[in-house]
Amino acid sequence: MQTDNFKSVVSKYNVIFFDAFGVLKTHNSLIPGIEKTFAYLRETNKDFYVLTNDASRSPEELAASYHRLGLMDIQPESIISSGMLAREYLGLKVSDGTVVYLGTEESAHYLQTLGLKTLSIRDLDLDNIGEVNALVMLDDEGFDWNVHLSKTVNLLRRRNIPVVVANTDRTYPMSSNHVAIAIGGVADMIENIVGKHFIRFGKPDAQMFIFAYEHIKNYPAVGKKEILMVGDTLHTDILGGNKFGLDTVLVLTGNTQAENVEVKIQSTGIIPTYICESAVVE
Amino acid sequence: MQTDNFKSVVSKYNVIFFDAFGVLKTHNSLIPGIEKTFAYLRETNKDFYVLTNDASRSPEELAASYHRLGLMDIQPESIISSGMLAREYLGLKVSDGTVVYLGTEESAHYLQTLGLKTLSIRDLDLDNIGEVNALVMLDDEGFDWNVHLSKTVNLLRRRNIPVVVANTDRTYPMSSNHVAIAIGGVADMIENIVGKHFIRFGKPDAQMFIFAYEHIKNYPAVGKKEILMVGDTLHTDILGGNKFGLDTVLVLTGNTQAENVEVKIQSTGIIPTYICESAVVE
Amino acid sequence: MQTDNFKSVVSKYNVIFFDAFGVLKTHNSLIPGIEKTFAYLRETNKDFYVLTNDASRSPEELAASYHRLGLMDIQPESIISSGMLAREYLGLKVSDGTVVYLGTEESAHYLQTLGLKTLSIRDLDLDNIGEVNALVMLDDEGFDWNVHLSKTVNLLRRRNIPVVVANTDRTYPMSSNHVAIAIGGVADMIENIVGKHFIRFGKPDAQMFIFAYEHIKNYPAVGKKEILMVGDTLHTDILGGNKFGLDTVLVLTGNTQAENVEVKIQSTGIIPTYICESAVVE
Amino acid sequence: MQTDNFKSVVSKYNVIFFDAFGVLKTHNSLIPGIEKTFAYLRETNKDFYVLTNDASRSPEELAASYHRLGLMDIQPESIISSGMLAREYLGLKVSDGTVVYLGTEESAHYLQTLGLKTLSIRDLDLDNIGEVNALVMLDDEGFDWNVHLSKTVNLLRRRNIPVVVANTDRTYPMSSNHVAIAIGGVADMIENIVGKHFIRFGKPDAQMFIFAYEHIKNYPAVGKKEILMVGDTLHTDILGGNKFGLDTVLVLTGNTQAENVEVKIQSTGIIPTYICESAVVE
Repeated sequence: MQTDNFKSVVSKYNVIFFDAFGVLKTHNSLIPGIEKTFAYLRETNKDFYVLTNDASRSPEELAASYHRLGLMDIQPESIISSGMLAREYLGLKVSDGTVVYLGTEESAHYLQTLGLKTLSIRDLDLDNIGEVNALVMLDDEGFDWNVHLSKTVNLLRRRNIPVVVANTDRTYPMSSNHVAIAIGGVADMIENIVGKHFIRFGKPDAQMFIFAYEHIKNYPAVGKKEILMVGDTLHTDILGGNKFGLDTVLVLTGNTQAENVEVKIQSTGIIPTYICESAVVE
Repeated sequence: MQTDNFKSVVSKYNVIFFDAFGVLKTHNSLIPGIEKTFAYLRETNKDFYVLTNDASRSPEELAASYHRLGLMDIQPESIISSGMLAREYLGLKVSDGTVVYLGTEESAHYLQTLGLKTLSIRDLDLDNIGEVNALVMLDDEGFDWNVHLSKTVNLLRRRNIPVVVANTDRTYPMSSNHVAIAIGGVADMIENIVGKHFIRFGKPDAQMFIFAYEHIKNYPAVGKKEILMVGDTLHTDILGGNKFGLDTVLVLTGNTQAENVEVKIQSTGIIPTYICESAVVE
Repeated sequence: MQTDNFKSVVSKYNVIFFDAFGVLKTHNSLIPGIEKTFAYLRETNKDFYVLTNDASRSPEELAASYHRLGLMDIQPESIISSGMLAREYLGLKVSDGTVVYLGTEESAHYLQTLGLKTLSIRDLDLDNIGEVNALVMLDDEGFDWNVHLSKTVNLLRRRNIPVVVANTDRTYPMSSNHVAIAIGGVADMIENIVGKHFIRFGKPDAQMFIFAYEHIKNYPAVGKKEILMVGDTLHTDILGGNKFGLDTVLVLTGNTQAENVEVKIQSTGIIPTYICESAVVE
Repeated sequence: MQTDNFKSVVSKYNVIFFDAFGVLKTHNSLIPGIEKTFAYLRETNKDFYVLTNDASRSPEELAASYHRLGLMDIQPESIISSGMLAREYLGLKVSDGTVVYLGTEESAHYLQTLGLKTLSIRDLDLDNIGEVNALVMLDDEGFDWNVHLSKTVNLLRRRNIPVVVANTDRTYPMSSNHVAIAIGGVADMIENIVGKHFIRFGKPDAQMFIFAYEHIKNYPAVGKKEILMVGDTLHTDILGGNKFGLDTVLVLTGNTQAENVEVKIQSTGIIPTYICESAVVE
């Protein structure tokens, strides 16, 4: 299979949207050489954004995590997370009562800045749910699945409230050959069991892309043809970017491996504009 | 069940998004009295848009169809159709080759204004498909289902091309107790058979709502809290409006009947902000 | 709604198939008066079987649980469980290696009587999986969901082995208004994540019914028209019984309540032959 | 990839179950050399059955179609078709009224031998449906999809009746690189639109296998370990055979090609016991 050179691809666009996991970083480290890409973007004065299905932390905390790894170019205002969309939804649609959450206390802090009253599923008393006006699924950690997933089902059988899923991923990588179930996978199970429609935020949904599009510095002067989406996953990054009308690059440093990329593109019908080894500008 | 008064609901918002079928009109006539609503909107200087899952005609032709029924307030620039999104996608992502379509010639005319070469599935020669770069499903009429749906499957088994579905509805009303299968229902069958991801445009997808939002006259000064979505269908109008952060009204003149509205809201978990008998301002 | 008298219904059949939960018992007790039904069956010399989606214990242990509640009529040879089918499958199709299980040690004991080597997902070492030749999901208890469900996903990404789900239910009742997620619900999540076909045993699948049918004392002299299936759940008991060609009774002492039985039958298209208040012969 | 020799595989079993399309024949001809297989089975005195998802004709007509192609070994009593199961269901569960069918007149003849009154969807008057007690989907030919599929939806919205799908396949091969949509694919679309449970007969469902199993000459003396299932499709033949507890052979003369057989087995988790080039004994 012939791949494209990432530098010559990226040189054709003015604004770059990056996925995070598998493109810029793995679980605990940066993709080797990725800092060169950001040096190139700085020199050539290209604008960029990181679009991430992550609701575990605020943009400030996400940016700080890149800084700790040595990548100083990523600022909070360059980050568009599914957690930001979930927070916007709750701010617009839930004006009072309690929001019950599945996730860590850290993930809930970001919601509390809206002035909403939040309560962990751990601390919910099923006999006292009259004030619960929404459920939000933020993170796979922070609660006991054996106990609190059944508790979630029982809550949703008794209260007809909106359920927000702030991460559409089913799994996330822990290491090169090890994954963990993400809250998006858990949400699918609960939704099937209770038979109700949950409200999901994250790629490939258009709302992530429009949110990023509106954040572009000289929006709306920038046309969609000037924007490039870079991702490692066909079903989220490439499908979403394509549908939004963007050109797309699939990189082979994450979920999609070189040996089966052609089979996957053929079998899914999700076709990136380019395929590159990585997002590293050499 | 207690319903809300539509006039007092609508008075609280500055911009109104309307669904078409079941809200403004039925198959061949207007909802009786709906002209009073548009008189009220004119008097009170409220902005409005019609969001419709319809790719059978251009906005100009859709507006003309309202004029023929006697409703002169709806102008082409007030109409946001799923066909407009499909057309934008093709303009951005398909630069050459032939676009094969399922639908009437009228539905294809609207695409041809992009300069794209279009070809009906009727006229496609399966032995000469090297130039086919996209398939678009526009309308349920204009071809022979017995023959051309299998032809569509064979095309998609041989060419890995994007497939655009320009209408997400499964059925549409023909009369008060009679429905017809819409192209969205046909698309589901073909997608299951070929196992590929199709690109769908239409409510409840956020892209319809953002497209309308960006068309608002004094956008982006108008906040989402000032916009009301009015629809007759929980799974498209209300789900999409809610997710986009809008307040929503379910009216009982179309797909959802008064006798089972509470059961449907409970069983789907899709909760409108208000329920009104109709969208008629009395 | 008009219901049928259970005694006059049951009098027309020679063999009765009963679901367990919601028909004969609730979580911790018998349905009041159910012993009268078994006295009637004894007097009238009718044959009966209990068909249960339960893989947590052997038929002997299941029968003993009825005896402890005071119902002495149910013998091990009258019980047909989904666990028996799973056990038969493993006996026929897995001749060597290790069978990893999700469930309690008690649920695994029943498999060990086949001579198979079993290992709890708790004790599996992911670096030593070359001998693992099947995975079987038996019960929702006996392991830590937070840790061992992701471990299950990682096992199935590395080893292409058959996965057996020995209970197709998504939830089970804990008390009158409280449910717990069953291993069948967990299996759906894992199957979606890994994208492989699992092998499910339990109602409504025909295999449960044929297994029971072959156990009938004077099979095959008994025709299907002489058999009545009694259950509380449309999607398992009634759907499965109907498809197998049996007449079916829906009782209202479990999952289906009198107030919404007609809506449920209408919306699912699953139509019992009879509806009775309970399976108690008065 | 290493394949197994079909003769040495088949020699180990006493009863052989064959799929028809892609194993014994293509659309208009026999698999070259397949008559040698039946000569071998005769010589070695092995019993065999053809299990086919076909409801377009009676077993007698199906056998005659093999005879016309020159294969005289296949008798009506060796054929187990999904149409036989659908017919048994209707005989057991529909005692009066009219059965509306989708299919050719030939396919309906086989049902009429039950004494049932049948009516083509073509001839149904939607204003006179009080006597319609079942709908059965038999074949993709014999009606106008544009007109009669919407008519089917309208019938099912007004009458809550059992719907029987007598063929679970979504497509069937017309030639080596051409398929047609089967009635099973159409049934999926209608089921999604009306939201009801249809009753499907055909592989991989256990009922096909048990029906064949009960037809074996010296049943029940023959154990499942003595039976081999031979098929060309993982999702029907191999999945169904495996689940029923049989050893299975995947042959590469039909739906599954040599070049992607390993990818398909890996991605579906459906694992045949053997893989052979064809079902021809050389």
